[in-house]
Amino acid sequence: MKVDSAGLQVLSREECLALLASVPIGRIVYTDRALPAVQPVNFLLDGQRIVLRTAAGSRLATAARDTIVAFEADEYDAGTLTGWSVTAVGRARATDDPEEIARLSRLPLTPWAPGGREHFIVVLPEQISGRRIRR
Amino acid sequence: MKVDSAGLQVLSREECLALLASVPIGRIVYTDRALPAVQPVNFLLDGQRIVLRTAAGSRLATAARDTIVAFEADEYDAGTLTGWSVTAVGRARATDDPEEIARLSRLPLTPWAPGGREHFIVVLPEQISGRRIRR
Repeated sequence: MKVDSAGLQVLSREECLALLASVPIGRIVYTDRALPAVQPVNFLLDGQRIVLRTAAGSRLATAARDTIVAFEADEYDAGTLTGWSVTAVGRARATDDPEEIARLSRLPLTPWAPGGREHFIVVLPEQISGRRIRR
Repeated sequence: MKVDSAGLQVLSREECLALLASVPIGRIVYTDRALPAVQPVNFLLDGQRIVLRTAAGSRLATAARDTIVAFEADEYDAGTLTGWSVTAVGRARATDDPEEIARLSRLPLTPWAPGGREHFIVVLPEQISGRRIRR
Protein backbone atom coordinates (compact mmCIF):
# COMPACT_ATOMS: atom_id res chain seq x y z
CA MET A 1 0.00 0.00 0.00
CA LYS A 2 1.49 3.31 -1.10
CA VAL A 3 1.21 6.15 1.44
CA ASP A 4 1.91 9.86 0.83
CA SER A 5 3.81 12.28 3.07
CA ALA A 6 0.57 13.14 4.92
CA GLY A 7 -0.05 9.49 5.80
CA LEU A 8 -2.88 9.02 3.29
CA GLN A 9 -3.19 5.96 1.09
CA VAL A 10 -2.41 6.76 -2.56
CA LEU A 11 -5.00 5.33 -4.98
CA SER A 12 -4.18 3.98 -8.44
CA ARG A 13 -5.73 5.47 -11.57
CA GLU A 14 -8.00 2.40 -11.84
CA GLU A 15 -9.19 2.82 -8.24
CA CYS A 16 -9.77 6.54 -8.87
CA LEU A 17 -11.92 5.85 -11.93
CA ALA A 18 -13.91 3.15 -10.11
CA LEU A 19 -14.58 5.52 -7.20
CA LEU A 20 -15.55 8.37 -9.55
CA ALA A 21 -18.05 6.02 -11.20
CA SER A 22 -19.61 5.22 -7.81
CA VAL A 23 -21.00 8.67 -6.93
CA PRO A 24 -23.60 10.90 -8.64
CA ILE A 25 -22.13 14.30 -7.71
CA GLY A 26 -18.71 15.89 -8.06
CA ARG A 27 -17.37 19.41 -7.97
CA ILE A 28 -15.96 21.29 -10.93
CA VAL A 29 -13.24 23.81 -10.11
CA TYR A 30 -12.52 26.62 -12.51
CA THR A 31 -11.62 30.27 -12.74
CA ASP A 32 -14.40 32.81 -13.05
CA ARG A 33 -13.36 36.41 -13.68
CA ALA A 34 -9.90 35.69 -12.20
CA LEU A 35 -11.39 34.20 -9.01
CA PRO A 36 -11.38 30.54 -7.99
CA ALA A 37 -14.84 29.00 -8.42
CA VAL A 38 -16.30 25.65 -7.47
CA GLN A 39 -19.69 24.15 -8.23
CA PRO A 40 -21.26 20.78 -7.40
CA VAL A 41 -22.67 19.01 -10.44
CA ASN A 42 -24.17 15.70 -11.41
CA PHE A 43 -21.80 13.85 -13.69
CA LEU A 44 -21.19 10.56 -15.42
CA LEU A 45 -18.05 8.75 -16.55
CA ASP A 46 -18.15 8.04 -20.29
CA GLY A 47 -15.13 5.77 -20.62
CA GLN A 48 -12.50 7.91 -18.90
CA ARG A 49 -14.18 11.19 -19.77
CA ILE A 50 -16.21 13.17 -17.24
CA VAL A 51 -19.52 14.37 -18.68
CA LEU A 52 -21.58 17.19 -17.15
CA ARG A 53 -24.70 18.87 -18.43
CA THR A 54 -25.71 22.42 -17.69
CA ALA A 55 -27.87 25.20 -19.09
CA ALA A 56 -26.41 26.91 -22.16
CA GLY A 57 -26.21 30.38 -20.61
CA SER A 58 -25.00 29.31 -17.16
CA ARG A 59 -21.95 30.74 -15.43
CA LEU A 60 -20.34 27.31 -15.67
CA ALA A 61 -21.04 26.95 -19.40
CA THR A 62 -19.49 30.37 -20.02
CA ALA A 63 -16.42 29.89 -17.81
CA ALA A 64 -15.58 26.23 -18.53
CA ARG A 65 -15.19 26.47 -22.30
CA ASP A 66 -11.92 25.05 -23.63
CA THR A 67 -10.03 25.65 -20.42
CA ILE A 68 -8.18 23.56 -17.82
CA VAL A 69 -10.40 22.61 -14.89
CA ALA A 70 -10.19 20.35 -11.87
CA PHE A 71 -12.92 17.92 -10.98
CA GLU A 72 -13.23 16.43 -7.51
CA ALA A 73 -15.45 13.80 -5.92
CA ASP A 74 -15.27 12.31 -2.46
CA GLU A 75 -17.12 10.43 0.26
CA TYR A 76 -16.56 10.69 3.99
CA ASP A 77 -17.93 8.95 7.03
CA ALA A 78 -17.78 11.14 10.12
CA GLY A 79 -18.56 8.13 12.30
CA THR A 80 -15.47 6.14 11.36
CA LEU A 81 -13.29 9.10 10.24
CA THR A 82 -12.67 7.37 6.93
CA GLY A 83 -13.17 8.43 3.34
CA TRP A 84 -11.68 8.99 -0.07
CA SER A 85 -11.18 11.83 -2.52
CA VAL A 86 -10.34 11.78 -6.22
CA THR A 87 -9.24 14.81 -8.26
CA ALA A 88 -8.91 14.91 -12.03
CA VAL A 89 -7.30 17.79 -13.91
CA GLY A 90 -7.87 18.26 -17.62
CA ARG A 91 -9.28 20.32 -20.41
CA ALA A 92 -13.01 21.07 -20.38
CA ARG A 93 -14.60 21.16 -23.78
CA ALA A 94 -18.10 22.27 -24.73
CA THR A 95 -19.73 19.82 -27.10
CA ASP A 96 -20.93 21.43 -30.32
CA ASP A 97 -21.21 18.40 -32.59
CA PRO A 98 -24.91 17.41 -33.00
CA GLU A 99 -24.06 13.70 -33.26
CA GLU A 100 -22.05 13.77 -30.05
CA ILE A 101 -24.81 15.75 -28.32
CA ALA A 102 -27.34 13.14 -29.44
CA ARG A 103 -25.14 10.35 -28.09
CA LEU A 104 -24.46 12.12 -24.77
CA SER A 105 -28.19 12.84 -24.41
CA ARG A 106 -28.82 9.09 -24.30
CA LEU A 107 -26.46 8.57 -21.34
CA PRO A 108 -28.19 8.02 -17.97
CA LEU A 109 -27.18 11.48 -16.75
CA THR A 110 -30.11 13.26 -15.15
CA PRO A 111 -29.28 16.43 -13.21
CA TRP A 112 -31.12 16.74 -9.91
CA ALA A 113 -31.65 20.46 -10.48
CA PRO A 114 -34.76 21.51 -12.39
CA GLY A 115 -34.71 23.25 -15.77
CA GLY A 116 -33.36 22.44 -19.21
CA ARG A 117 -29.72 21.41 -19.36
CA GLU A 118 -28.89 20.72 -22.96
CA HIS A 119 -25.31 22.00 -22.84
CA PHE A 120 -22.71 19.24 -22.39
CA ILE A 121 -19.25 19.78 -20.96
CA VAL A 122 -16.71 16.99 -21.35
CA VAL A 123 -13.52 16.85 -19.27
CA LEU A 124 -10.71 14.58 -20.46
CA PRO A 125 -8.59 13.88 -17.37
CA GLU A 126 -4.87 14.32 -18.01
CA GLN A 127 -3.95 13.78 -14.36
CA ILE A 128 -5.97 11.77 -11.86
CA SER A 129 -4.98 11.45 -8.23
CA GLY A 130 -6.78 10.00 -5.27
CA ARG A 131 -6.31 9.47 -1.56
CA ARG A 132 -7.98 7.31 1.03
CA ILE A 133 -8.04 8.16 4.71
CA ARG A 134 -8.31 5.32 7.15
CA ARG A 135 -7.73 5.11 10.88
CA MET B 1 -38.07 31.82 -0.80
CA LYS B 2 -35.56 33.21 -3.30
CA VAL B 3 -34.77 30.98 -6.28
CA ASP B 4 -31.94 31.42 -8.82
CA SER B 5 -32.10 31.01 -12.61
CA ALA B 6 -31.29 27.29 -12.27
CA GLY B 7 -34.27 26.72 -9.97
CA LEU B 8 -32.15 26.34 -6.81
CA GLN B 9 -33.09 27.97 -3.51
CA VAL B 10 -30.72 30.85 -2.66
CA LEU B 11 -29.47 30.71 0.95
CA SER B 12 -28.84 33.75 3.12
CA ARG B 13 -25.39 34.49 4.59
CA GLU B 14 -26.69 33.36 8.01
CA GLU B 15 -27.97 30.07 6.60
CA CYS B 16 -24.65 29.56 4.79
CA LEU B 17 -22.64 30.08 8.00
CA ALA B 18 -24.94 27.76 9.97
CA LEU B 19 -24.56 25.03 7.33
CA LEU B 20 -20.77 25.48 7.18
CA ALA B 21 -20.68 25.03 10.96
CA SER B 22 -22.61 21.74 10.65
CA VAL B 23 -20.03 19.68 8.74
CA PRO B 24 -16.45 18.59 9.56
CA ILE B 25 -15.00 18.62 6.04
CA GLY B 26 -14.87 21.18 3.27
CA ARG B 27 -12.81 21.66 0.14
CA ILE B 28 -10.27 24.40 -0.39
CA VAL B 29 -9.85 25.54 -3.99
CA TYR B 30 -6.69 27.30 -5.03
CA THR B 31 -4.18 27.63 -7.82
CA ASP B 32 -1.08 25.45 -7.78
CA ARG B 33 1.56 26.17 -10.44
CA ALA B 34 -1.09 27.85 -12.63
CA LEU B 35 -3.45 24.86 -12.42
CA PRO B 36 -6.74 24.67 -10.53
CA ALA B 37 -6.36 22.58 -7.36
CA VAL B 38 -8.86 21.31 -4.80
CA GLN B 39 -8.29 19.48 -1.55
CA PRO B 40 -10.69 18.21 1.13
CA VAL B 41 -9.77 19.41 4.62
CA ASN B 42 -11.14 19.36 8.11
CA PHE B 43 -12.10 22.87 9.16
CA LEU B 44 -13.78 24.89 11.84
CA LEU B 45 -15.63 28.19 11.83
CA ASP B 46 -14.03 30.67 14.23
CA GLY B 47 -16.63 33.41 14.19
CA GLN B 48 -16.99 33.97 10.46
CA ARG B 49 -13.44 32.85 9.69
CA ILE B 50 -12.66 29.43 8.26
CA VAL B 51 -9.74 27.76 10.05
CA LEU B 52 -7.74 24.86 8.58
CA ARG B 53 -4.64 23.16 9.85
CA THR B 54 -2.06 21.45 7.73
CA ALA B 55 1.57 20.39 7.80
CA ALA B 56 4.03 23.28 7.41
CA GLY B 57 5.67 21.97 4.23
CA SER B 58 2.50 20.75 2.53
CA ARG B 59 1.47 21.67 -1.00
CA LEU B 60 -1.54 23.48 0.48
CA ALA B 61 0.56 25.45 2.98
CA THR B 62 2.87 26.56 0.18
CA ALA B 63 0.16 27.46 -2.34
CA ALA B 64 -2.46 29.04 -0.06
CA ARG B 65 -0.31 31.76 1.45
CA ASP B 66 -1.81 35.24 1.21
CA THR B 67 -3.87 34.46 -1.85
CA ILE B 68 -7.56 34.41 -2.80
CA VAL B 69 -9.10 30.95 -2.40
CA ALA B 70 -12.54 29.43 -2.54
CA PHE B 71 -13.85 27.13 0.15
CA GLU B 72 -16.78 24.81 -0.45
CA ALA B 73 -18.83 22.48 1.73
CA ASP B 74 -21.93 20.52 0.87
CA GLU B 75 -24.17 17.62 1.78
CA TYR B 76 -26.29 15.54 -0.59
CA ASP B 77 -28.78 12.74 -0.22
CA ALA B 78 -28.94 10.52 -3.30
CA GLY B 79 -32.11 8.90 -1.97
CA THR B 80 -34.19 12.08 -1.91
CA LEU B 81 -32.15 14.05 -4.52
CA THR B 82 -31.83 16.92 -2.05
CA GLY B 83 -28.85 18.77 -0.68
CA TRP B 84 -27.07 22.05 -0.16
CA SER B 85 -23.76 23.66 -1.08
CA VAL B 86 -22.03 26.72 0.34
CA THR B 87 -19.04 28.48 -1.24
CA ALA B 88 -16.96 31.19 0.41
CA VAL B 89 -14.36 33.23 -1.46
CA GLY B 90 -11.73 35.21 0.40
CA ARG B 91 -8.11 35.72 1.25
CA ALA B 92 -6.20 32.82 2.83
CA ARG B 93 -3.64 33.88 5.37
CA ALA B 94 -0.99 31.76 7.07
CA THR B 95 -0.89 32.43 10.80
CA ASP B 96 2.57 33.44 12.02
CA ASP B 97 1.69 35.10 15.32
CA PRO B 98 2.53 32.75 18.25
CA GLU B 99 -0.39 34.06 20.35
CA GLU B 100 -2.86 33.43 17.56
CA ILE B 101 -1.37 29.97 16.93
CA ALA B 102 -1.76 29.18 20.64
CA ARG B 103 -5.38 30.30 20.56
CA LEU B 104 -6.18 28.39 17.34
CA SER B 105 -4.49 25.29 18.79
CA ARG B 106 -7.08 25.24 21.54
CA LEU B 107 -10.01 25.14 19.07
CA PRO B 108 -11.67 21.71 18.72
CA LEU B 109 -10.17 21.19 15.26
CA THR B 110 -8.68 17.72 14.93
CA PRO B 111 -7.73 16.64 11.41
CA TRP B 112 -8.67 13.07 10.58
CA ALA B 113 -5.42 12.57 8.70
CA PRO B 114 -2.42 11.38 10.73
CA GLY B 115 0.76 13.41 11.28
CA GLY B 116 1.61 16.79 12.77
CA ARG B 117 -0.40 19.72 11.47
CA GLU B 118 0.81 22.80 13.26
CA HIS B 119 0.37 25.20 10.35
CA PHE B 120 -2.87 27.20 10.48
CA ILE B 121 -4.54 28.75 7.47
CA VAL B 122 -7.33 31.26 8.07
CA VAL B 123 -9.76 32.28 5.33
CA LEU B 124 -11.80 35.43 5.85
CA PRO B 125 -14.84 35.07 3.57
CA GLU B 126 -15.52 38.19 1.52
CA GLN B 127 -18.31 36.55 -0.48
CA ILE B 128 -20.47 33.68 0.72
CA SER B 129 -23.11 32.07 -1.43
CA GLY B 130 -25.21 28.98 -0.96
CA ARG B 131 -27.85 26.96 -2.73
CA ARG B 132 -30.29 24.28 -1.70
CA ILE B 133 -31.69 21.69 -4.07
CA ARG B 134 -35.06 20.24 -3.29
CA ARG B 135 -37.52 18.20 -5.32
